[in-house]
Formats: sequence, C-alpha cells, structure tokens
Amino acid sequence: MKLATVRTAHETRAVRVEDDRYVDLGYGDVRELLEQPDWRTLAAADGAALPLETGLAPVVPAPGKVVCVGLNYRSHILEMGRPLPEFPTLFAKFADAIIGPNDDIVAAPESECVDWEAELVVVVGETVRRADRAQATAAIAGFTVMNDVTMRDWQFRTREWLQGKTFDSTTPLGPVLVTPDELPGGDAPALGISTSVNGELMQSAQTSDLLFAPVALVEYVSTMTTLRPGDVIATGTPAGVGHARDPQVFLAPGDKVVTEVSGIGRLENTVVAG
Amino acid sequence: MKLATVRTAHETRAVRVEDDRYVDLGYGDVRELLEQPDWRTLAAADGAALPLETGLAPVVPAPGKVVCVGLNYRSHILEMGRPLPEFPTLFAKFADAIIGPNDDIVAAPESECVDWEAELVVVVGETVRRADRAQATAAIAGFTVMNDVTMRDWQFRTREWLQGKTFDSTTPLGPVLVTPDELPGGDAPALGISTSVNGELMQSAQTSDLLFAPVALVEYVSTMTTLRPGDVIATGTPAGVGHARDPQVFLAPGDKVVTEVSGIGRLENTVVAG
Repeated sequence: MKLATVRTAHETRAVRVEDDRYVDLGYGDVRELLEQPDWRTLAAADGAALPLETGLAPVVPAPGKVVCVGLNYRSHILEMGRPLPEFPTLFAKFADAIIGPNDDIVAAPESECVDWEAELVVVVGETVRRADRAQATAAIAGFTVMNDVTMRDWQFRTREWLQGKTFDSTTPLGPVLVTPDELPGGDAPALGISTSVNGELMQSAQTSDLLFAPVALVEYVSTMTTLRPGDVIATGTPAGVGHARDPQVFLAPGDKVVTEVSGIGRLENTVVAG
Repeated sequence: MKLATVRTAHETRAVRVEDDRYVDLGYGDVRELLEQPDWRTLAAADGAALPLETGLAPVVPAPGKVVCVGLNYRSHILEMGRPLPEFPTLFAKFADAIIGPNDDIVAAPESECVDWEAELVVVVGETVRRADRAQATAAIAGFTVMNDVTMRDWQFRTREWLQGKTFDSTTPLGPVLVTPDELPGGDAPALGISTSVNGELMQSAQTSDLLFAPVALVEYVSTMTTLRPGDVIATGTPAGVGHARDPQVFLAPGDKVVTEVSGIGRLENTVVAG
C-alpha cells in the first residue's frame, strides 16, 4: 500500500495512491491517519477519487519528531577510514525544515555550502517506548524518502550539527509512504538510493548497506523517547555528498536535485534563493 | 508580570501569579496565551481566582521548539581552558522530555550518569525569522528556569549530544514566566543561578556571565528557523555539573534537586527510578 498527503484547494488530505487516482481516506494528512489505531484497515477503504495531478504535500507535513541518523552506510564509513560505530549518531531537525516532494529548496543567503543527502526514512505508525524487536517491527508504518539538505558551513560552526540541519523549508519528505510488505527486504528494505544534481549522478548506493537497520533504529530511539504515529527517523546518507567531493560541489539557485529510493519514489526539487 | 500554567482537575490553565492567588486568564496554557497577538493585555485582565496550592504544570507544557545552548558561561569556558567560541553551540530536546517544576525526574535505568544543569530560559512571545536586535528584544515574552537533566553516558556515546539530552520526563521547566520589566537587567537578566542536590550547593553563578545574551540568541536562532510563541531557548549552564566534579557525582533515585534563578523561582524535583 502507498499513502500520501496531497494539497487540495484549501487543505491537505491523506490519500491512498492507486495506479490511476488518489483515494481520499477521510483524514487531513498521513499523520492524522496513522494516529487511528486501525489505520491499516482505514487506509484500505474506498473513498472519493482525486486526480494524480493533485499536488503533493510532505508525506507527513508536521512530524512530532524528526530524528536523523549520521554515519550509517557501512561502505561510506569504511572508505572514510573510520571504525564502524557501536551506537547510532542521532540529531534532530525541527518540523519547519520540512517541505513537499516537489517544493523548492530555499537556499539561505547566510550559507555558501548548501549540500544534499539522500536518505531512506522510517515513518512510525504506533506509539512505542523501549520497543523490543517485535514491537519495533510492528511500529514501522512504512518508508519514505528525505533529502536531508544541510548548510555545511553552519553544520561545522560548532561541534553540534543542529544549526546546519534545520534551516526552514530545506528538507523535502515524500513522495509517498510505502508499507514494508510492498518492498524487497520488507522492514529492512534492499533498495537503490541515489541523488542527481542537474542530471549528474552524485550518490548511488544500496539501503541494504545500512549499519543500523530500521528496526534496530526504532528500538534504539525508543529507549530514550516515546515514538508516536507520524514521527520519522531518517536513516543516514551514503557516500557522494558535495562536501566530500574533490573539488567540493554545493547547490545554487536554479539547480535541479533529484533524490530517489527505488520502489518508493523520487523527490524533485529546484533550489531557489531565500 | 508573572505567568504560569497550572493543573486543575481535568486540564491545565494559563494564570497570572499574584501574591495571594492565581488569576485564570482563560487559556489552556501559557503557550496558547502567548499565541494571542495582544497577550500582554490579556495577561493583565481579571479572571477567576485559583488558590496558590494549585499544582504547577511546565510553564510551557509542549513547546514547539526546545533549543538548547551549550558552552555559554564565560568563566566556565575559560576555566576549562577553552577559547571563547565565535558562535553558540545549539542542540535540541524533544518536548516529551519536559516536566513540571515539582514533578519527579525519571532516571532511566539505561543510564548510570544522570546529571544536572541549571539554565536561564528565554520564552518566545512572537513569531520571528531573521530578527534584528529590536525584533529579537520584542520577541522575548520573558524568562523561566530549566534543569537540563542529561544522561552523560548517552550524551558522549557519539559526537552528537541529542540522545543524552532527550530522555522522556527528565527536564523540569518553570515555575513561572517573568516578564523582562520585572527583572534586574531586563532582557539581559543579571540574576543568581544555582543548583543544590540534597541541600549541597553544586552550581552557583550569575546570568550576567552569559557569553551569548538572550537577545543575541533570539537573533541567531531565528536566522535559521522561525521562532514562535511558546518556543524556548535554554541559554546554557555554568560550572559545577556532576560530570566535571572530582570525584564525579551523579543523581540517584531519592535525590532532591533544587534549581533556582533568583527573581524567577525554583524547580524542586525528586529523582525516581524509571
């Protein structure tokens, strides 16, 4: 099953994505749908049809928590000459950073180093704390895609990354949530992940290379804090970010960025001056 | 003017604190009050009286953003032998960490290093982005107190502090919001700040020693993200945390922790096993 949040004239709506239409599920967005205990049944119901041309909002427009993981692709860690970490590195974004899958990425005039990071994202579908493996598995509603756009100069101003990670209107999330049963690998999806900028391939990897897999991340994060429906965990990015290239490459107004996870979909965004 | 959020039988209420009573202001909590553009007028209005024995909720029960500042007391930075930083170090807490000023601090069984951090906190009262000095000054609704309780072992598991900072139900916020006009120093309060544990003084400093002052912090944070009514910025802690003592001291179930900023009030919390 594929779910999305679409923008109608005056509001957003949670929909099921079918081949030829969206089906309105009667909720304002995917988070509101996931907050219903029987959301899996509700998401399969019939409803009014909306055309596939309806614009997409972020799949979760205002997540309660946006938890991001750093340093999580095995091959990327090893090629950087680092040991494999014992624990996941976690940081936060505020929800104001989130934009829709085709919205413009706002490059702040205060940054000269706007960079991309393709990420597979877990969308939480149940309230869990200290989830064991079975509970963590059940708590995964599905997967989506994020471009964890980062102002590298601000990220490295201090030792904490937050300020480079949470500029408003920088971080597309979507296009759809895909339930694990529809993906190869299920709750440990084995999918291609990539970024291209103006048609040039910049990142290309496999999500099966994740050191901390989605279920393990739900277990770990829920040790410290309650995860709730609509919360998202961005699982980290593979090699190929602009900051690590030689010479370095950063995004500029007018650039077209495509971030894609096979089997889920693509974020297509234009960079604009803030 | 002093404002608080109190707990009645079935809900919370925003109140003005008077010498002999609380005055119900007609809103569910201080955030909801601050979201009214004319909140300063509304907060001065008359209303039903509640007894001072009414229990206190967090002054803002669910801030949209909890921004925390590290390394911000000049004397503490210098005594650690570090240079004064050019930029504030910022990290986040999730709102689930927040508890009331007299609630129990839940020490997670997963941590052996539960530590205290007394902090002066800015409460935002207007929506601002890229605030200049005058806008930032106007956006400060007032000040409150936080004990930024930290699981040091988790904080230092990786290079990002978030996971040690955001365990649920650890972080008291309150007891009241005091408007700048009632404080010596106004929007740059010059107040004593302290922590004691089981009656022993552990931290004692002056908020006038802050390297990045409240107005400067509102300017800086609003460069990257929109600040809204009820958002809080915790301005950092002075010397004397348990982790930096010799020998180290950490909190255990049964400990009584008092965190105080003179002119604002005190957080009095008992540590309990999670």
